Amino acid sequence: MNSDVSIYGGVEAGGTKFSCIIGSDPDHILSECSFRTTTPEETLSQVIEFFANAKEPVSAIGIGSFGPVELNQTSKFFGHITNTPKPGWRNTDFAGTIGRALKIPIVFDTDTNAAGLGEIEWGNAQALDYLLYVTIGTGIGGGFIIKRKPLHGLLHPEMGHMRIPHDWTQDPFSGICPFHGDCLEGLASGPAICKRWGALGEDIPPGHPAWILEAQYIAAGLVNLVCALSPQRIILGGGVMKHAELFSGIREKMKELSNRYFAHRQLQDDISEYVVPPKLGERVGVLGALALAKIAFED
Amino acid sequence: MNSDVSIYGGVEAGGTKFSCIIGSDPDHILSECSFRTTTPEETLSQVIEFFANAKEPVSAIGIGSFGPVELNQTSKFFGHITNTPKPGWRNTDFAGTIGRALKIPIVFDTDTNAAGLGEIEWGNAQALDYLLYVTIGTGIGGGFIIKRKPLHGLLHPEMGHMRIPHDWTQDPFSGICPFHGDCLEGLASGPAICKRWGALGEDIPPGHPAWILEAQYIAAGLVNLVCALSPQRIILGGGVMKHAELFSGIREKMKELSNRYFAHRQLQDDISEYVVPPKLGERVGVLGALALAKIAFED
Repeated sequence: MNSDVSIYGGVEAGGTKFSCIIGSDPDHILSECSFRTTTPEETLSQVIEFFANAKEPVSAIGIGSFGPVELNQTSKFFGHITNTPKPGWRNTDFAGTIGRALKIPIVFDTDTNAAGLGEIEWGNAQALDYLLYVTIGTGIGGGFIIKRKPLHGLLHPEMGHMRIPHDWTQDPFSGICPFHGDCLEGLASGPAICKRWGALGEDIPPGHPAWILEAQYIAAGLVNLVCALSPQRIILGGGVMKHAELFSGIREKMKELSNRYFAHRQLQDDISEYVVPPKLGERVGVLGALALAKIAFED
Repeated sequence: MNSDVSIYGGVEAGGTKFSCIIGSDPDHILSECSFRTTTPEETLSQVIEFFANAKEPVSAIGIGSFGPVELNQTSKFFGHITNTPKPGWRNTDFAGTIGRALKIPIVFDTDTNAAGLGEIEWGNAQALDYLLYVTIGTGIGGGFIIKRKPLHGLLHPEMGHMRIPHDWTQDPFSGICPFHGDCLEGLASGPAICKRWGALGEDIPPGHPAWILEAQYIAAGLVNLVCALSPQRIILGGGVMKHAELFSGIREKMKELSNRYFAHRQLQDDISEYVVPPKLGERVGVLGALALAKIAFED
């Protein structure tokens, strides 16, 4: 490895698993590890230990975290996980704990914003100015990247909690969001599929009506996000999107819902280039966290 | 007027009326005029004539136009009104026609982006980094301003065409959008109110169920936009919003729909400061067009 190249750290903080990485890019990774998410005390200690024991020092660590998180740098809660329903993690000073222990700069953002930056740096969105990254898994979250910077705002986007038309005739299921019932996440997240059909997504075969309904709901959410954000590309990650047939179903439904209103070929004939999976695959989260640090320090 | 102060022009281009203005800020307006929107030839000639005959030369003209418009500066259609259903106006080279005739720089954007910039420069959003401006009238449109710059993207936002839950029990009306039927604009624009109730909005009395339903639909749209964009404030303009009771109805429904998920007082106790009318009132469009030119040349 070129000794002029800076080495960064990345932490992908998920509700069930944490992954840590050290390197400069996907082809130059020095060290990696993963562990289960338990208590904040135990899990953050494991993160600190990984970086403290690293052979090469890192210039900065990027953290892409599950949320909601506080991203306002003027808030005394900056870098905290805030009102998560995840037991024990509410009001955890994530960035502060890691930064103080390791005495290096921390770049803190949402998991989806980090993933979006990963795809911009090394994946399917290189050179794009407006990228929407949406993850559909245990929850549904989205990040919008504008000219290599994630959109924050009052808080940060909470795209999974949009309301979409609920097809009560086809789908009498009332949704699982504890706050909103049948918001997008309540209808279309992994746990919603599981509860509605009484089976894990991975056990539901291709061609099952579950996937038609899922494509319909996700497409409605994405068309709404196109109306609000007008992204140049949409990258869809997360466990639910491993059902590859979903991509074609979502694209067809998006064309149908747009109904040629958006006079852009991306929403019609070229939709297969507009709605795509992450090039970084399953590593998009942890490499995105690495990109978060790299972009903050090198741009 | 201080001779060091630059004089700009503004054009508010609406589907029924055009307004032109010359000045440096709302307290220093030198000249104004309005005329009906007829054909592009006639209407754009009137714009050119107004500025050509002005006593003081303007440094630049801002145009806030009805849409859809092409905002991509690398496109050969930059500055055009594109696929509007408005007779005669499809593919009109708006910015080019004005700029070539007057030989001065033109700053071209959507009507709602211009209005948002007006409120940032002189209105209810001064010093805010993330403003959502939504107009509810003949159509529904939105502009999102990030650090004094409108969000463009692939095209520009088309917020009125979001899908929201349609309350078929209370409201069997199928919506009026020629592309989408019951999208937000199809359910909640001025013409939708008129067609559903068989009366003009101005003739529907306060307390009528029309306003409860209207508040519900607009609130659903706005909560979705909060999920996507996380604005620091929402300004609501347009003819329908002249029914002042709508503001309280929308705010209550937004609190109900958020259901304390967004841990920000703006979405709860402080919502009356979060969702507000334009300070510039009925002049927000034309003053916004002036702000468009001023901000582009002075920032």
